[in-house]
Amino acid sequence: MTEFSLFFILDLLGTIAFAISGALSAMNRRLDLFGIFIIAFVTAIGGGTLRDVLIGSTPVTWMENILYIYLIGVVTIFAIIFRSKLNHLKKSLFLFDTIGLGVFTITGVEMGVQNDLNPIISIALGAMTGTFGGVIRDILCNEIPVIFRKEIYATACIIGGLAFVILHQLAVDTDIIYIATSLTVILIRLVVVKYHISLPSFYLSSKT
Amino acid sequence: MTEFSLFFILDLLGTIAFAISGALSAMNRRLDLFGIFIIAFVTAIGGGTLRDVLIGSTPVTWMENILYIYLIGVVTIFAIIFRSKLNHLKKSLFLFDTIGLGVFTITGVEMGVQNDLNPIISIALGAMTGTFGGVIRDILCNEIPVIFRKEIYATACIIGGLAFVILHQLAVDTDIIYIATSLTVILIRLVVVKYHISLPSFYLSSKT
Amino acid sequence: MTEFSLFFILDLLGTIAFAISGALSAMNRRLDLFGIFIIAFVTAIGGGTLRDVLIGSTPVTWMENILYIYLIGVVTIFAIIFRSKLNHLKKSLFLFDTIGLGVFTITGVEMGVQNDLNPIISIALGAMTGTFGGVIRDILCNEIPVIFRKEIYATACIIGGLAFVILHQLAVDTDIIYIATSLTVILIRLVVVKYHISLPSFYLSSKT
Repeated sequence: MTEFSLFFILDLLGTIAFAISGALSAMNRRLDLFGIFIIAFVTAIGGGTLRDVLIGSTPVTWMENILYIYLIGVVTIFAIIFRSKLNHLKKSLFLFDTIGLGVFTITGVEMGVQNDLNPIISIALGAMTGTFGGVIRDILCNEIPVIFRKEIYATACIIGGLAFVILHQLAVDTDIIYIATSLTVILIRLVVVKYHISLPSFYLSSKT
Repeated sequence: MTEFSLFFILDLLGTIAFAISGALSAMNRRLDLFGIFIIAFVTAIGGGTLRDVLIGSTPVTWMENILYIYLIGVVTIFAIIFRSKLNHLKKSLFLFDTIGLGVFTITGVEMGVQNDLNPIISIALGAMTGTFGGVIRDILCNEIPVIFRKEIYATACIIGGLAFVILHQLAVDTDIIYIATSLTVILIRLVVVKYHISLPSFYLSSKT
Repeated sequence: MTEFSLFFILDLLGTIAFAISGALSAMNRRLDLFGIFIIAFVTAIGGGTLRDVLIGSTPVTWMENILYIYLIGVVTIFAIIFRSKLNHLKKSLFLFDTIGLGVFTITGVEMGVQNDLNPIISIALGAMTGTFGGVIRDILCNEIPVIFRKEIYATACIIGGLAFVILHQLAVDTDIIYIATSLTVILIRLVVVKYHISLPSFYLSSKT
């Protein structure tokens, strides 16, 4: 695990991005120092942990490599020190959350493909990996989970995952797939939010 | 897993029932298309996933068989199209939730018995399997978890589980046990809710 | 597992303490009999279950030994019967929660050390084991998770875990380590709350 494969680098990048988003969320809730660390930690490892547990790859990734915890610690301190520079909170939070979403989704899809799971199942695993950290962060911080705030959060994951399995079946080079599909997820979310695109909802008029 | 054993059919039936209950809940919360799919998916696989993870049977069931995801997709589309026919929302939601509860409880107990766990532990596993999907659905949709809405939700699971282990020790045919005990759980809940039966609560007058 | 090692006794002690805290919390929410059992059960097994699942030690501990379920049942009945004696609710809840926190943290750290995990990772595992039961209890009872109520909850775990790995590297007798470090966690929390010590928070003035 000490060789820096692109997969490993993506996993670290997602960890960094989600740790920052967690720390920002926790500071916004006025949590104390350790509260900030905990939310950063749980947000950063949540998606990967779910992925590993569902696949049965235990002990989970962050337990096998101390780098994850160090990274989360350093990133959190960084987020605390530079909090005034990250002052457009909503924008920063959104950006880091989106990066984490993109790269973690792809690590989940890759894990599914590596384990010879059906492509559609791999995409579902990717979507869960990408979104779970943010969902726990929001539940712990008592926010409505970001996944339901109309921003086509999961749609981006699913399209990116679809691109992954198609490129994989076309035997495109793995590293190119990783980068292209992570960027796909990130770009879709950025575009969707910028232009306020939304999917239809189907309101059920309840007659109780 | 392609042979259609009764166990497998029950697992699919629970999946369908909980997918519908999840989709109804999500439409009621005015979530968009993907939000509906996600809640349906998580509700449908939640209980079985917890069961598999606790037992150590990974990758979890829905990862090993593509049928689960297809089924959830089709059922969700069905629920969206026929949403106006399901218009007595509370009643439909209650019914499908109860069916899911009944059959998933029994798959959990069976899994415990198969793994030679103590009967009481198998019942606990069954209760967790039966209730977990609904609990996540309600947490994600910001409702008070159904398990605490006074409807003796868990009691039904526990009595059905008890019936299962007793019939199993009497060496009754497995398929008959499955059907009899699933129906037991479902009927208990229907009767209890119809006649407003409730268990005592023990209010603790807090002197802070 | 039938030999009563100190590790096993600590695990049981934590189970008892968290079962009481769960039962008190549930009675305070006016849940019915089974609701009380369920919250007691989930609170008591939550931390250990997370620990076992993350490490990959499945079936999880409470499934391998019926003693856990019996103990939780007896303790819950005890808590219901003597609820008027436990009437200074907040104080009782706080005390049992703190004992559970202390001993479960140490079982988590020990599990990490036994599995040759990095000391810092073992401490993180201990903190998650110690706090998770209380977090689920609070989420299910719709309270703000205790971990964020300014009481340096997690800090106590982390300092106790640190003491554990240091004493372990000094080759101190295991049983002495267990007792000393569990007490460390408990005492830190008691002192901190008594003297209203709190860590700094870093409020992020959001300019939205």
